[in-house]
Amino acid sequence: MREAYHAELDAISDGLVEMANLVGSAIGLATTALLDADLQLAESVISTDAKVDDLQRDLENRAIAVLARQQPVATDLRQVVTSLRMSADLERSGDLAQHVAKLTRMRHPQRAVPRDLRRTVLEMGQLAQRLMAQAAEVIITQDVKAALQLEQDDDRMDELHRVIFQHLMDEKWQHGVETAVDVTLVGRYYERFADHAVSVAQRLIYLVTGEHADELPPTAL
Amino acid sequence: MREAYHAELDAISDGLVEMANLVGSAIGLATTALLDADLQLAESVISTDAKVDDLQRDLENRAIAVLARQQPVATDLRQVVTSLRMSADLERSGDLAQHVAKLTRMRHPQRAVPRDLRRTVLEMGQLAQRLMAQAAEVIITQDVKAALQLEQDDDRMDELHRVIFQHLMDEKWQHGVETAVDVTLVGRYYERFADHAVSVAQRLIYLVTGEHADELPPTAL
Repeated sequence: MREAYHAELDAISDGLVEMANLVGSAIGLATTALLDADLQLAESVISTDAKVDDLQRDLENRAIAVLARQQPVATDLRQVVTSLRMSADLERSGDLAQHVAKLTRMRHPQRAVPRDLRRTVLEMGQLAQRLMAQAAEVIITQDVKAALQLEQDDDRMDELHRVIFQHLMDEKWQHGVETAVDVTLVGRYYERFADHAVSVAQRLIYLVTGEHADELPPTAL
Repeated sequence: MREAYHAELDAISDGLVEMANLVGSAIGLATTALLDADLQLAESVISTDAKVDDLQRDLENRAIAVLARQQPVATDLRQVVTSLRMSADLERSGDLAQHVAKLTRMRHPQRAVPRDLRRTVLEMGQLAQRLMAQAAEVIITQDVKAALQLEQDDDRMDELHRVIFQHLMDEKWQHGVETAVDVTLVGRYYERFADHAVSVAQRLIYLVTGEHADELPPTAL
């Protein structure tokens, strides 16, 4: 009984990791599609999102089944509830990767990102993918230190987001309003994607330590 | 025992309604602050959000306590899990109201919204507040018909969002890039806020009918 139970908890955890891997790849591919105006790649990212949604639904049903059948308490209970929350973060991250791909489709054959922001957007996309890979790892290892590190690494995303705004607010901006709107949205999508990766890490910290991330002393890092 | 149990479920439901009321008022006040460049009002919206976050944390702890102590099954279990999800939607809605207020603060004493979009933004703000009021009602009444109606009413938000984009993409746009960026973000904040109200309604539909909203026949309305 206990064994079957822990197998079920493991299956939920595996499902989360699979979701994180899928959405991590999706944001990477969406970034390439965006920068290259690659319509086919964008379409494949858009259609992959249904798989992420299916995984989430499946995971939610599993979690509810565990709650109903095994009636876990204490840490096990928190783990199941935390999984539900993490799956919502990951599902939303998938939506955001899809948004990047849809913007690519909307502007095709034009490119949504002007050349002088290409490097910044590429770095945002790569960082987003990396943060999600770290989130997947944190789910597996339950390593609080790595989770705190992920939070710190996200600071770079905020910097990159500021770079985007500096370009937008610069008097020398010469790409017109439509591109300004696109770049504003793209910047926001990446920032939110990264927020969800951070959120997964924070939930893990809370699960393991019982303390919210913002209450931990800086020396915990 | 059963009585204490249902009192706890009711307390969770009351907490959700309180959250919905708070964030509904917050988006209304944030809209007024935005349109009038009212810094004091914006600050009060920003500081209210901590209360929403506290409510959510409180609600999450209550839900976990019910799961641990009462070990609900079937519908009761789904209700607790649904509450956790709804509280996440409502917490996020509070963040979005706060974002509108922060944009107001950032542009003060200027107004972020140009005069020719004032009416559209006002309607978005009022609709957002109304949708959240409907969501609160749906939580109380568990009325599937009202929940489906909320989904339909959200179509107007999408229309308004399109109006914003039409203005932005119009060659006659004369408010510059900074305002275009602000208006892009504002439009997105309202749309996402409304999405979360719709999400609350959809979760209620699933709780009551066991079917996802997109699987219900149109005649269900």
